[in-house]
Amino acid sequence: MLSTRLASRRLAVPARRWKHTSSRPPLNSVTADDVAHFAKILPQNAILSTLPPSDLHASDIDQYNNDWMGKYHGNSTTVLRPQNTKQVSDIMKWCHERRIGVVPQGGNTGLVGGSVPILDELIINLGNMSKVRSFDPVSGALVADAGCILESLSEHIAPHNHIMPLDLGAKGSCQIGGNVATNAGGLRLLRYGSLHGTVLGLEVVLPDGTVLDNLTTIRKDNTGYDLKQLFIGAEGTLGIITGVSILTPPAPQASTNVILALPRFENVLPVFKTARLHLSEILSAFEFIDREAYDLAVKHGQGKALNEQDVEGAECFVLLETSGGKKEHDEEKLTGLLETLLEADEPLILTGVLSQSPTQFASMWRLREGITESVSKEGKAYKYDISIPLAAFKEVVDLTREHLRKQGLLHEEAVKQVIGYGHVGDGNLHLNVIAAAYTSEIQAALEPFVYELVASYNGSISAEHGLGAMKAHAIHYSKTGVAVDMMKKIKELFDPRGIMNPGKVLEF
Amino acid sequence: MLSTRLASRRLAVPARRWKHTSSRPPLNSVTADDVAHFAKILPQNAILSTLPPSDLHASDIDQYNNDWMGKYHGNSTTVLRPQNTKQVSDIMKWCHERRIGVVPQGGNTGLVGGSVPILDELIINLGNMSKVRSFDPVSGALVADAGCILESLSEHIAPHNHIMPLDLGAKGSCQIGGNVATNAGGLRLLRYGSLHGTVLGLEVVLPDGTVLDNLTTIRKDNTGYDLKQLFIGAEGTLGIITGVSILTPPAPQASTNVILALPRFENVLPVFKTARLHLSEILSAFEFIDREAYDLAVKHGQGKALNEQDVEGAECFVLLETSGGKKEHDEEKLTGLLETLLEADEPLILTGVLSQSPTQFASMWRLREGITESVSKEGKAYKYDISIPLAAFKEVVDLTREHLRKQGLLHEEAVKQVIGYGHVGDGNLHLNVIAAAYTSEIQAALEPFVYELVASYNGSISAEHGLGAMKAHAIHYSKTGVAVDMMKKIKELFDPRGIMNPGKVLEF
Ligand SMILES: Cc1cc2nc3c(=O)[nH]c(=O)nc-3n(C[C@H](O)[C@H](O)[C@H](O)COP(=O)(O)OP(=O)(O)OC[C@H]3O[C@@H](n4cnc5c(N)ncnc54)[C@H](O)[C@@H]3O)c2cc1C
Ligand SMILES: Cc1cc2nc3c(=O)[nH]c(=O)nc-3n(C[C@H](O)[C@H](O)[C@H](O)COP(=O)(O)OP(=O)(O)OC[C@H]3O[C@@H](n4cnc5c(N)ncnc54)[C@H](O)[C@@H]3O)c2cc1C
Repeated sequence: MLSTRLASRRLAVPARRWKHTSSRPPLNSVTADDVAHFAKILPQNAILSTLPPSDLHASDIDQYNNDWMGKYHGNSTTVLRPQNTKQVSDIMKWCHERRIGVVPQGGNTGLVGGSVPILDELIINLGNMSKVRSFDPVSGALVADAGCILESLSEHIAPHNHIMPLDLGAKGSCQIGGNVATNAGGLRLLRYGSLHGTVLGLEVVLPDGTVLDNLTTIRKDNTGYDLKQLFIGAEGTLGIITGVSILTPPAPQASTNVILALPRFENVLPVFKTARLHLSEILSAFEFIDREAYDLAVKHGQGKALNEQDVEGAECFVLLETSGGKKEHDEEKLTGLLETLLEADEPLILTGVLSQSPTQFASMWRLREGITESVSKEGKAYKYDISIPLAAFKEVVDLTREHLRKQGLLHEEAVKQVIGYGHVGDGNLHLNVIAAAYTSEIQAALEPFVYELVASYNGSISAEHGLGAMKAHAIHYSKTGVAVDMMKKIKELFDPRGIMNPGKVLEF
Repeated sequence: MLSTRLASRRLAVPARRWKHTSSRPPLNSVTADDVAHFAKILPQNAILSTLPPSDLHASDIDQYNNDWMGKYHGNSTTVLRPQNTKQVSDIMKWCHERRIGVVPQGGNTGLVGGSVPILDELIINLGNMSKVRSFDPVSGALVADAGCILESLSEHIAPHNHIMPLDLGAKGSCQIGGNVATNAGGLRLLRYGSLHGTVLGLEVVLPDGTVLDNLTTIRKDNTGYDLKQLFIGAEGTLGIITGVSILTPPAPQASTNVILALPRFENVLPVFKTARLHLSEILSAFEFIDREAYDLAVKHGQGKALNEQDVEGAECFVLLETSGGKKEHDEEKLTGLLETLLEADEPLILTGVLSQSPTQFASMWRLREGITESVSKEGKAYKYDISIPLAAFKEVVDLTREHLRKQGLLHEEAVKQVIGYGHVGDGNLHLNVIAAAYTSEIQAALEPFVYELVASYNGSISAEHGLGAMKAHAIHYSKTGVAVDMMKKIKELFDPRGIMNPGKVLEF
């Protein structure tokens, strides 16, 4: 099977490069003079720099230079934390003039090295722009500074019985601007769709400092090209998002979740189909967790495990959520589903546990959401966030594990575990390879192996995390040459000097 | 009130121009030599031309030169009806080389003059590209030629229990490519969101003939800029859409609708709020029909009217649809809603009629969908398709009527009626001014009056129909100069010779 798959590889992609090369004039480093200029734009406490006359140490800005996984490390000397759009615009005008590379930074929870510098680019962190600008409880339109934390926004609209259309494990740290910049998917996409549908408008500071203000709250507007779409998922390479207008749905009146233990992976698809039939519009999440991922989350105390006997022999798990308008109706539907799943001659599930209280509801979600954290506690993770047909989820995990074993890399000192979990409803698998350390040997064993595997299914090498620094070189596995050329032309159009997040998304 | 509203007008927009002017070299007309070249690309029956040696008359291609409303008239000599993407590409290569202006045409049901030439541009009609390429009943991904009629696609997937995520009155003639090109909204947007969220991928022939193939069926793909978004709503000014991949939702297991007669317009908002509370996720349409629109539809035999006594004194109507997973549940919710609406001390509605059969269901929808047709039977319509706050729906209709009255234009020989209807759930009002004939006097009375009114609410002058030829000059009422400049740069990037649908969307 592996060989058949790989026989269909069509692409030769050059090995990954760790720096941004370009045909453009080189970018300039931030100097003490630049910092002096920034001091005219920003209050002193909004400037963190290790350049003289400051006495900050490199370690003081470590948290901005290093990513969440501890995998990507920048060498920036200077971090700016502007408080409003005007300041961002003034900073960008200067950087444009001076050809200084800039990394926009939100909560720095991105998983592809997009949010930290590759060399010593200036970091513009949006954390100080955290005001809600307006909320309309009738339409659900929320307008907020890009630096607002996702969870704070949820809390802000909760009293009005609205929820954010997206939710993800990093909600306590990630910012709405970062979510938009990465086109984050998350746990509610199945129900509320992607940010390309829910974002109503954006305010963006372009690389030359121009403010593109399209912060509309209207739901439908067909007057010309939908420019905002370009910034959704551009990972900060076309401009800095300073404001977001987003459509928030009314909170469901009732939510329940259930964990199902499945004897065999092959049952996932039939369970999914049956669930869709029984639950239709109230099915709001359908998450897949393989056995190794489940055990890992349990080991690290994420959520309450199911009864040990009950899950004996379970090959994988499904976490399923419903969100509906009437509790009794939803429960009736869910009970009907569970009966159908258990009743068959050869039941599709071993067991199913329905949450009985808000605490249990939260604890079941923690099991799923806690996987990312458990992985990072367990070791250093190579994370592949891919779109492939659901039927191939297990095969891809197994093939990757086998491949590493054959390379003699599957042992405690190299790769400890290969696990899979993800959003079944969206065809999105998180393949995580947990190693003792990041090494070039493992790296070379995994890439382009994984990318070629994904391409053989016509999949996407990045379903939701983006390309960042990690996969900029590998875009060809998922996009045609014509498409990449067109993207490069758009990048040149918006950012002719190449100062916006250099080396990310596209290679020049 | 009127004067306050208009006091806030901030924009001076030049009067509408009926031809495309440009700083670029002028475009060339199609010659007999060009037609001879096209004969090498296409079979003879795919070429309709009045140029020698053909003996076709101008009247033979009338249906392609004139729009659905009979308002916009082109003078093209030649219509091509290619059968596949390669042919479209070869045609475009030639037109690019020869600087021939091109109008992509779908079902020609557009309402803003975008689908017919302004002068004598070549018409490329997609009607011969009408094959379904693939359908995956698990994911719901449908891939089809751009020329497929919307209704045929619905029929194609119906046996698999899926529906198209959009529906509109023109479904029997409009094409999926035309829907995408106009970013059509329609009757299901409230439930399934806009095409920016449901279109998975596109195949587009760029102005120079290059094929941009991104016809993916995966739901999530964050590898670089989402180029397809630019073509959604570009109205054929950036390229010709030849293939569409779209996510189709599972068919609801049960659908019901109800018509509500409201004593006063002021009740629409409370009714909407109450409906959302009771029906939440099963509320799939909430359409507003004012009294004049209702009477007009009834007059033209569209759908069955409610009982005459029951609607006496009704100022407006609401058509509400539910689509859910379980009939009994949905009916229970709907009954609960009707009780609440009727029970209050001062009931919010006069009467509500629930459809009791599929025939009645269809007949109630016909009442709403039939308005567009009734309007065109009644006279010549000036159609304004605007996004404004729901609370202003009635005010805008009333102000427009008053304005026309003051100008002495509200009588049988000039403007017969001013009506309003639309998608309340999306904040989208269709303001229709029905005249005896299209005259420059009425035109001058309406524009920029209506646009200024919309701008005073920070609304959109085109919620879903697009700008086309009608509103290209008026884009500034809804977009900033910075945004328009950026759009123009994108147009230049994709179409440096300005051959794609010249004079539409943007003025040069
Ligand atoms: C525990 C955990 C769980 C996660 N779960 C999911 C998940 O389920 N689904 C998912 O899609 N992702 C997930 N992620 C990754 C996800 O991409 C980020 O969490 C989030 O969307 C990034 O937001 P941020 O504010 O942290 O952005 P950062 O990490 O700071 O930045 C991410 C990228 O966006 C750019 N950027 C940030 N802010 C701006 C701005 N204002 N303007 C322009 N560019 C900007 C940066 O330059 C960078 O390229 C998870 C991450 C963690 C740590
Ligand atoms: C009775 C009626 C009801 C309607 N109801 C609604 C409604 O509820 N909501 C709504 O949004 N609209 C509605 N419309 C208008 C709507 O825009 C169109 O019906 C439809 O989306 C256009 O599709 P079409 O194939 O007829 O395109 P056309 O009218 O042929 O073309 C429309 C525009 O798209 C371009 N175009 C067409 N095909 C392509 C292609 N393949 N590639 C590139 N460009 C292309 C054309 O150049 C033109 O600019 C209605 C129209 C009618 C007549």
